[in-house]
Amino acid sequence: MRSIGRLNHVAVAVKNCDSAAKLWRTLGLEVNKVDRLPEHGVKVAFVELENSKVELLEPIGKNSPINGFLDRSPVGGIHHICVEVDNVREMMKKVQTHGIRVLSDEPKIGAHGKPVVFLHPKDCNGVLLELEER
Amino acid sequence: MRSIGRLNHVAVAVKNCDSAAKLWRTLGLEVNKVDRLPEHGVKVAFVELENSKVELLEPIGKNSPINGFLDRSPVGGIHHICVEVDNVREMMKKVQTHGIRVLSDEPKIGAHGKPVVFLHPKDCNGVLLELEER
Repeated sequence: MRSIGRLNHVAVAVKNCDSAAKLWRTLGLEVNKVDRLPEHGVKVAFVELENSKVELLEPIGKNSPINGFLDRSPVGGIHHICVEVDNVREMMKKVQTHGIRVLSDEPKIGAHGKPVVFLHPKDCNGVLLELEER
Repeated sequence: MRSIGRLNHVAVAVKNCDSAAKLWRTLGLEVNKVDRLPEHGVKVAFVELENSKVELLEPIGKNSPINGFLDRSPVGGIHHICVEVDNVREMMKKVQTHGIRVLSDEPKIGAHGKPVVFLHPKDCNGVLLELEER
């Protein structure tokens, strides 16, 4: 059994989801409607690729986790990638035994209504890696 | 017909492919052997996910296209994403009519032996977007 499976999405931080969606539609791709997730401090829209998704993330409010990224990169950019795991808590334990830090003590409920955690980018080749339970 | 299809890979710039491969193997994933592509100024190794790949990119030489990225982000990070298209030249024309810049006048032959071009990140939400002919 493989403990990590699909690449669920690549998340892209943007200043404005609607204008970002236009770009991806220009490329011939479908973009779902924009959803507000105030509890996560973001608006999100998913760009549908054949085998995966691009998640457009626009900040909401002063405490949005995306604000710092967009302060450094106002044009936007790739913010994180999300991979699916069988069991988030088991994978948290496993990575911690290898010295990889997890950014929260407990999983949170992510954009798809499933438990998620993020791993520390400094321990993952500079990649902010989201683990989502499938 | 959709002109853009699969997310072929997410590329991660790293200082050292072999030590980066260890991390991804720790997560339970398979990593192919490291290939040298001196004509592209990189070593590459692919991490196999169920539906896509992570491409680990290590610079070779002083003129490697990855050097600037690693100077700014020595720990590494997500460098670009690659999507598959039916016809690279047609897609180049299409995006240019929408004001999206292409970083080369002609496609080059990429890591999979197929024609590729890159789109300007400033025109793509800060995302360096590779188009690879499928």
